[in-house]
Amino acid sequence: MPRDAVADPRQEILRTAARLFQEQGYDGTSMNDVAAALKLSKGGLYHHFQSKDEILFDLMNHAMDITEERVIAPAKMIADPEERLRTVIRRHMGVVMSERDREITVMLHENHPLSPALRKRINSRKKDYIHFLENLIAEVQRQRGYKGAVSPRAAAFALLGMINWIYQWHRPEGSLQEDGLAQQYTEIFFQGALG
Amino acid sequence: MPRDAVADPRQEILRTAARLFQEQGYDGTSMNDVAAALKLSKGGLYHHFQSKDEILFDLMNHAMDITEERVIAPAKMIADPEERLRTVIRRHMGVVMSERDREITVMLHENHPLSPALRKRINSRKKDYIHFLENLIAEVQRQRGYKGAVSPRAAAFALLGMINWIYQWHRPEGSLQEDGLAQQYTEIFFQGALG
Repeated sequence: MPRDAVADPRQEILRTAARLFQEQGYDGTSMNDVAAALKLSKGGLYHHFQSKDEILFDLMNHAMDITEERVIAPAKMIADPEERLRTVIRRHMGVVMSERDREITVMLHENHPLSPALRKRINSRKKDYIHFLENLIAEVQRQRGYKGAVSPRAAAFALLGMINWIYQWHRPEGSLQEDGLAQQYTEIFFQGALG
Repeated sequence: MPRDAVADPRQEILRTAARLFQEQGYDGTSMNDVAAALKLSKGGLYHHFQSKDEILFDLMNHAMDITEERVIAPAKMIADPEERLRTVIRRHMGVVMSERDREITVMLHENHPLSPALRKRINSRKKDYIHFLENLIAEVQRQRGYKGAVSPRAAAFALLGMINWIYQWHRPEGSLQEDGLAQQYTEIFFQGALG
């Protein structure tokens, strides 16, 4: 394990597990694989995580922490609703397109089997984010005197779809780069859902 | 097996496998599970499919067939580009929201491990659809004398994201129903990406 990981071994385990899940699938990755990739003994790994399910749940939780820290918290410091929404779009896209964050946050959208109790806790955090977006969109629509037929709820799902779908197709070396794409998606959303 | 399936047992196997993959995950479903759900012997199942991978590949291929038959072919019969695009949006959303189609087409977006050769064949069909969309969007932008900054490529990915993300959140009993949602998504996309 790299030296800086020793301070927070759980974090380093999560990051390595996320990479392995991406490369060989969640079910194709065993606890042994995770331990081996970290040069840990199996006992060493089980000291931190009792099961692969616990790793997956912690990964998803960590992904929601990233969303809160990098997207929601900075946005909430902005008073103007329209500017706040632009910040959410730009920052959420930044997370999705950041090589370091995406290997963790992409786990949120995999339909891996998680126990109903754990699944419920993750879903509740996802729902909080959707409500935050929905309320913000409603606020911007009011501020701009929006007269169109798009509801804040449909708009929130459309926006999340545009952004989260980027995981499926975006390659860092591709022709659509982060800044240009963020600008274009913001234009689509503002013209399309906020009049 | 229901009587009408006897005529096309492969189809019935695919549909049952898709349901099981949704309920218990791809890796959590064995060939035995598929055979048992169909009241087939294991030999009977292997007579039609040699492996679970073959089932998954056929499911994905079948999903692309559905897209071609229900979305692309009917759209291509429409001469006016704008009307053609509206038809694509409405019909693609119809597939995603149809209970019968979605259990098959959702498989397209799972990151299941498929051999590189098979993966390549599916990806090539996906790319054909993206190019079809991109060209159609470019045509509509020209027709409308679009002056905005949204490229047909970014617009195509935004639209696919909005629509394919519906798998993640839509429930048939929810408040956002198919007709209303198709209308709102069409409005977002036309106002947002086509001026």
